[in-house]
Amino acid sequence: LVSKLPSVGTTIFTKMSALAAEKDAINLSQGFPDFPPDARLLARASTAILTGNNQYSPMTGLPMLRDAIAQLVERHYGRIVSSQDEITVTSGASEAIFDAIAALIRDGDEVVLFDPAYDLYEPAVTLAGGICKRVTLTARDFRPDWQAFASLLTDQTRLVIINTPHNPTGSCWQAADLESLWQAIASHDIYVLSDEVYEFIHFGESAVSVHKHAGLSTRSLVVSSFGKSFHLTGWKVGYIIAPAELTVELRKVHQFVSFCTATPLQQALAEHLLALPDASDELGAFYQQKRDVLRRALADSRFTLLPCDGTYFQLLDYSAISDLDDVAFCEWMVDEIGVAAIPVSVFYQQAPEGQRVIRLCFAKEESTLLEAASRLSGL
Amino acid sequence: LVSKLPSVGTTIFTKMSALAAEKDAINLSQGFPDFPPDARLLARASTAILTGNNQYSPMTGLPMLRDAIAQLVERHYGRIVSSQDEITVTSGASEAIFDAIAALIRDGDEVVLFDPAYDLYEPAVTLAGGICKRVTLTARDFRPDWQAFASLLTDQTRLVIINTPHNPTGSCWQAADLESLWQAIASHDIYVLSDEVYEFIHFGESAVSVHKHAGLSTRSLVVSSFGKSFHLTGWKVGYIIAPAELTVELRKVHQFVSFCTATPLQQALAEHLLALPDASDELGAFYQQKRDVLRRALADSRFTLLPCDGTYFQLLDYSAISDLDDVAFCEWMVDEIGVAAIPVSVFYQQAPEGQRVIRLCFAKEESTLLEAASRLSGL
Ligand SMILES: CSCCC(=O)C(=O)O
Ligand SMILES: CSCCC(=O)C(=O)O
Repeated sequence: LVSKLPSVGTTIFTKMSALAAEKDAINLSQGFPDFPPDARLLARASTAILTGNNQYSPMTGLPMLRDAIAQLVERHYGRIVSSQDEITVTSGASEAIFDAIAALIRDGDEVVLFDPAYDLYEPAVTLAGGICKRVTLTARDFRPDWQAFASLLTDQTRLVIINTPHNPTGSCWQAADLESLWQAIASHDIYVLSDEVYEFIHFGESAVSVHKHAGLSTRSLVVSSFGKSFHLTGWKVGYIIAPAELTVELRKVHQFVSFCTATPLQQALAEHLLALPDASDELGAFYQQKRDVLRRALADSRFTLLPCDGTYFQLLDYSAISDLDDVAFCEWMVDEIGVAAIPVSVFYQQAPEGQRVIRLCFAKEESTLLEAASRLSGL
Repeated sequence: LVSKLPSVGTTIFTKMSALAAEKDAINLSQGFPDFPPDARLLARASTAILTGNNQYSPMTGLPMLRDAIAQLVERHYGRIVSSQDEITVTSGASEAIFDAIAALIRDGDEVVLFDPAYDLYEPAVTLAGGICKRVTLTARDFRPDWQAFASLLTDQTRLVIINTPHNPTGSCWQAADLESLWQAIASHDIYVLSDEVYEFIHFGESAVSVHKHAGLSTRSLVVSSFGKSFHLTGWKVGYIIAPAELTVELRKVHQFVSFCTATPLQQALAEHLLALPDASDELGAFYQQKRDVLRRALADSRFTLLPCDGTYFQLLDYSAISDLDDVAFCEWMVDEIGVAAIPVSVFYQQAPEGQRVIRLCFAKEESTLLEAASRLSGL
């Protein structure tokens, strides 16, 4: 049996969460909240299960949920999307990303990513027969270099995958970046997969989104995640918005990958979004407070805090503390300090020489963050 | 945009269910129950949502659920499987099937199917770059022809996909069929994907399963579905059992397709299986009764009832009633008679000349079945 994904091991998230459990460490590795979602949303899900429909939803998602998503997108971005033809509900953002890549990429197609990149893009491209080319984001501030980007485009380039707010770095693009991207691809036959799962978790001004770019939105598939926006990563309900022509192809894959997603959970999310249309407005402030708690508590430590403009991830440079590479440092930390983190090098094809940076998830209770920071401050 | 799946349209299930809703017809097309699941299971899910974990489960599935599955398999089939290394929980049986094909098939690999076949096998093979070859099941009794099968095998054959109890025909294989399959492939480098989602819905003697075949089980991935076994198709929780070496490759795909499946629903299923280990024992008798209600009510109609040994699908031959092809006949029936069915030709690559057969789903309340039969008996 020859592996189709020989270089893929168990994801770092599985590995570090298992290690954290085994060592009884504070788990700031895999990104998920340690606090409960809104009790009203849970009550709706309970009711949907006890009294509602537990059979297949339509393949495209419950109509009521797609309508609620259309309203959310209009409210936040002023973009009008057709809930019928442009929105598809998926089993988490992962499935949305996988489906999009499987629908668009064929043997020999090239896909441009930015390095570092979330871990599922490349294997999905590989399975579809495509080839990934990566533009390295600048060190420390993780900015795209648009000249380097343009030089990677060829006649085989079919798709660009972008991600803002960015996992793992917590950096956010600016409106000018989307415009540069558009200028570079507008005259080519290139699509964009925009992973915006942290769209509502950004600090400072409003986040950049493909939804707000008239040109890009005609060429893009935009992925979102209720898991991130409503603190329930374990529900695995996401969605993807794309022009009808792209949605037709995406759904051909989706209908055979998962067909549909847990109906009562979709029902609960639909009711919740319609009842509380501004629920996501406060998400930025909510997480900014957690970020600031963590940053303040580490301010006097020997870690250097990198900027964090969005997502629930904070990068720490530990070069003043250790010469270990980041994988070894994370293993040592979970063992000796009782805090699990994610080494940032695993997201890179080619990590910058000598970079010593780890990622902490701050989607945690304040007490968790303070205890972790106190352990880390001893270093 | 050139489609990777040019011949795929919207699935017949989506089409017919939409048509049934639009015409307010009795929907015996798409396979799903119109009665509620066990209230105790729903209560468990409600509690899991309100008080349990709503974050990611482990990528392989909740350990408690995998343990419960291992016990179920041992209890029913006497097979010992490792819950750690051989069981993976997926977002429905669909995802399990898709992942298995994506993990094993590459450009130019050949996959043998039996005609007619469930609609998702071939597109999944196509997306992976493989080629499907089909052995036609015999007319009326839908039996495999093992000589025809053997003649299709080549050096490129990588996988055989089998499905018993069989959707759409309701036929079941015999133990001798599995032995013939094994004899044909044992000396080749060929794997088996066994779709056993209707494993507990069989009438008469105990169903044949790859789990009970010592040789085949070393080479097979066996797919099951809680949706079918617990009357909740809308939860989308399935699982796949395969030797560790195959499971490693399968999980590499699964971790990037969906990563994991709704945690509280997994929790509820685990508790339910452990509390009621014999819950699935009565499923055969439960559905046999529904089948018999439907068959008796149609006995004097002009439809010919084909044999039905398993699944919740009954085939009807309508040649005495109409010359229309089965797609046209189903459209006419939903319009004029108010009953939605599935044309069987859509599952075929090459339907037998002049075959006029439709599929009814009898996973319905007795009153639904009787009303549908009464409408159909007027024909
Ligand atoms: C699907 S597990 C990974 C969760 C996550 O997105 C992260 O930690 O980066
Ligand atoms: C995923 S919708 C189809 C349900 C089903 O398996 C069938 O009707 O055959």
